Amino acid sequence: MAAAHKETSVAETLSTPLPTRSGDESLAVRIAKSVSIVDKGALHSLAEFHAWFAERGKRVARVHKMPLDELVGWSTDPDTHNIEHHSGKFFSVQGLSVELPGAPVAAWSQPIINQPEIGILGILVKEFNGVLHCLMQAKMEPGNRNGLQLSPTVQATRSNYTRVHQGNAVPYLSYFQDTSRHSVMTDALQSEQGAWFFQKRNRNMVVETDEDIEPHEAFMWLTIGQLHRLLAIDDLINMDTRTVLSCLPFSGAELAEQLPGPGSELRLPILRSCSEDHGSLHSTGDILSWITDARTRHEVRTRPVPLREVENWRRTPYTISHDTGRFFDVMGVHIQTDGDREVREWTQPMIAPVGVGIVAFLVKRIEGVLHVLAHACVEPGYLDVVELSPTVMCTPANYEGLPPAARPAFLNHVLAARPEQVLFETLLSEEGGRFYHAQNRYLVVETDIDITPELAPDFRWLALHQMVGLLRHSHYVNVQARSLIACLHSLSGAPRDL
Amino acid sequence: MAAAHKETSVAETLSTPLPTRSGDESLAVRIAKSVSIVDKGALHSLAEFHAWFAERGKRVARVHKMPLDELVGWSTDPDTHNIEHHSGKFFSVQGLSVELPGAPVAAWSQPIINQPEIGILGILVKEFNGVLHCLMQAKMEPGNRNGLQLSPTVQATRSNYTRVHQGNAVPYLSYFQDTSRHSVMTDALQSEQGAWFFQKRNRNMVVETDEDIEPHEAFMWLTIGQLHRLLAIDDLINMDTRTVLSCLPFSGAELAEQLPGPGSELRLPILRSCSEDHGSLHSTGDILSWITDARTRHEVRTRPVPLREVENWRRTPYTISHDTGRFFDVMGVHIQTDGDREVREWTQPMIAPVGVGIVAFLVKRIEGVLHVLAHACVEPGYLDVVELSPTVMCTPANYEGLPPAARPAFLNHVLAARPEQVLFETLLSEEGGRFYHAQNRYLVVETDIDITPELAPDFRWLALHQMVGLLRHSHYVNVQARSLIACLHSLSGAPRDL
Repeated sequence: MAAAHKETSVAETLSTPLPTRSGDESLAVRIAKSVSIVDKGALHSLAEFHAWFAERGKRVARVHKMPLDELVGWSTDPDTHNIEHHSGKFFSVQGLSVELPGAPVAAWSQPIINQPEIGILGILVKEFNGVLHCLMQAKMEPGNRNGLQLSPTVQATRSNYTRVHQGNAVPYLSYFQDTSRHSVMTDALQSEQGAWFFQKRNRNMVVETDEDIEPHEAFMWLTIGQLHRLLAIDDLINMDTRTVLSCLPFSGAELAEQLPGPGSELRLPILRSCSEDHGSLHSTGDILSWITDARTRHEVRTRPVPLREVENWRRTPYTISHDTGRFFDVMGVHIQTDGDREVREWTQPMIAPVGVGIVAFLVKRIEGVLHVLAHACVEPGYLDVVELSPTVMCTPANYEGLPPAARPAFLNHVLAARPEQVLFETLLSEEGGRFYHAQNRYLVVETDIDITPELAPDFRWLALHQMVGLLRHSHYVNVQARSLIACLHSLSGAPRDL
Repeated sequence: MAAAHKETSVAETLSTPLPTRSGDESLAVRIAKSVSIVDKGALHSLAEFHAWFAERGKRVARVHKMPLDELVGWSTDPDTHNIEHHSGKFFSVQGLSVELPGAPVAAWSQPIINQPEIGILGILVKEFNGVLHCLMQAKMEPGNRNGLQLSPTVQATRSNYTRVHQGNAVPYLSYFQDTSRHSVMTDALQSEQGAWFFQKRNRNMVVETDEDIEPHEAFMWLTIGQLHRLLAIDDLINMDTRTVLSCLPFSGAELAEQLPGPGSELRLPILRSCSEDHGSLHSTGDILSWITDARTRHEVRTRPVPLREVENWRRTPYTISHDTGRFFDVMGVHIQTDGDREVREWTQPMIAPVGVGIVAFLVKRIEGVLHVLAHACVEPGYLDVVELSPTVMCTPANYEGLPPAARPAFLNHVLAARPEQVLFETLLSEEGGRFYHAQNRYLVVETDIDITPELAPDFRWLALHQMVGLLRHSHYVNVQARSLIACLHSLSGAPRDL
């Protein structure tokens, strides 16, 4: 029976790795190379990028609040008071009743966005001069505080790309709809904000092509290293770019090869964390069992209800707000643009969170390998009970005046961090198509505290390669954690002072 | 930066493999050894098993049909006509409205079981004489045509183990509720019949202990090789055992080592299929992308509705049936036992399918590696749109009188198979706690037909190790496919004529 081992020709003929464009280089090596290129070797310098982006930003976009009852193409159902589009497509604002037996707040109801359509968030990738480049878009979204942010190549709901609103065709969409002539680097359905969306998922894709690409003035080719550098700038890299970037298969060993030189003191623990070779505190089997256990322990009962049955929320002409003024408002906006967006004028409901949030991973070097403290967190909009979220994810203003015991776990560790503990800090926006001025301060904070499963059963230390392994699948890592993974990967690259 | 490679001490100190009981043997080796043991080396011979099982079967269980309105502890809601337990727990029979735009039958409504509680299906494993043994239970279920079948150690809904019906404690449950003193071999939530259950999942666990186990007369320790042998017997290994067995991490290389000798002509292609070393027609990345695409392409809209709004179903005192007499009946049963079950007399609603089903994988040797033809199949009860199901999964009687074009794809290939193409064939039951006399003919049929993605976009050839890799996670492989994977694994073991 040892013959089963000897016929290596089977493996040779059968395995179908991704086609490589540069001879025999593996995808991991090619990604690592793109991470290492920030200026020399890139199609455009960062200076050229900033000039182009500033020029694109001169186009005017006017966003005004307007009464919910005056939204055009949207109406409030007289029975349910749900806010719906006339086509029955896009999304609606409904009510959700939530029960979490045993939780500090065991039951509530709230408005929520119901968007059952699966959209595409896709980055098109192509090799230039032997270096992978990503086709990025300078895109206006009504919820962006600063107008333009840097988006994936394609960011389209099904209603977008089936042209429900009769806009222009979505550029480059066909590369993601029919991938047969291209290479798919990553392709998974991922959740979005579970506090604001009911079971929404988008398809996160990275597709490589070797075809000639028609250039378009709102798009620019950038290396992964350049995107990593831009992640340090407030409100520039949008949420959809961050989540797609986080799904790319990073490999610490290949990154170490591509990035010689001393680097920062931090880089080595991050590179080790990106590589399976350096192990992890818990085996992946134990992590999967812990997630399964959390999904069994936490009972979540959610039920769509008419928006008018939602308790403790009040509707005025311009907003639907919580009686306490906390959490978020539902509001109406009118948008008018000069630019290249599919439609030049439209109105829609949006969610406007109250206050700036904190999204933070506590991280720790364990045997020289950086680990992040993941939280198996319940949110009402998740399809499968819990997802791994950052250590801290909250809006501190929502807890003002409440007793200290009501504050989220580890929030004080983050707020009290000394400057040298803060490895990453940037103010970043959530998706500007649904959320109005939704900003979070994204932080990576190093700690040396001991946190054991006994002390904090819903928290575990994971290595980055374990998070990236889970990201091949749905339902595991929430959108805020994905953003922070992209931010952590950005620290593995070329030193900032290059 | 090459230092990242050199510090192998990190890997040594950090990786936490499952503790092994026999020196340094890996879990894969220990499983392979248990697969290879059928008689010598096992605690009990198969002859002893059969004698014990026959003796256990002498206990009387009486199952009678009874009117739905006379069920004790259950009632029909006067508004919705849903059938519910007085505790509000266990499960209920409700209506479900289903829309599948573009499908041959684009909309229907049906009765369905709603059982939101996550139960535990657990096999306790322990090493005796250096060989892993599984603690199996001879268990009566009301839906079993033959009374007793061989069940996992624990098979308990949350209502069971929180004692909602005041029965006896579930034996051995604590090994699965607190695993901290044991080793978890596999632990994932897996779906059950998506045509009959609305979003039901059970926790499939295999837990190894080295503690002394209190013996109980309804339980017996058996090797995996013995369970494999018993899978060839009609209606013996129950569905819950099959699904838990399928999740065990099999490895072809280790099996080949443990099973010297010529074996059947079939064994080599199966062992290759169980090993990543021999590759696969499609990379796992391409398979994941295909599943993501299927989840995006197929739009499924399901909505719980009152049972009385279900169209084309008729309620009589004893049953709820489809007007055509096809599909299944909902019926009431009264059960009385002499045995060791938690409660000695009870009544409940059950689903009784019409006719015997066919559940079959077409398999093909591709470059010497056995591949199964998986179907990305929509069923209304799945939480995430599609799951991989067997090539054919249907009840042929439901298609009688319909034009040939309406028949399921590949059904004719299975029905017309020549004897030498049939690698496995056993009549097996679905779960006897909810389904009454629900039998399927489980088949593995070898073929040499060419089936390409272009010809059949919802079908792909997968190697067994790819299926087992997906089984570490939820939402990928449906319960019928899991049964067939356990059956295929059983063909890798000791020859039948040992």
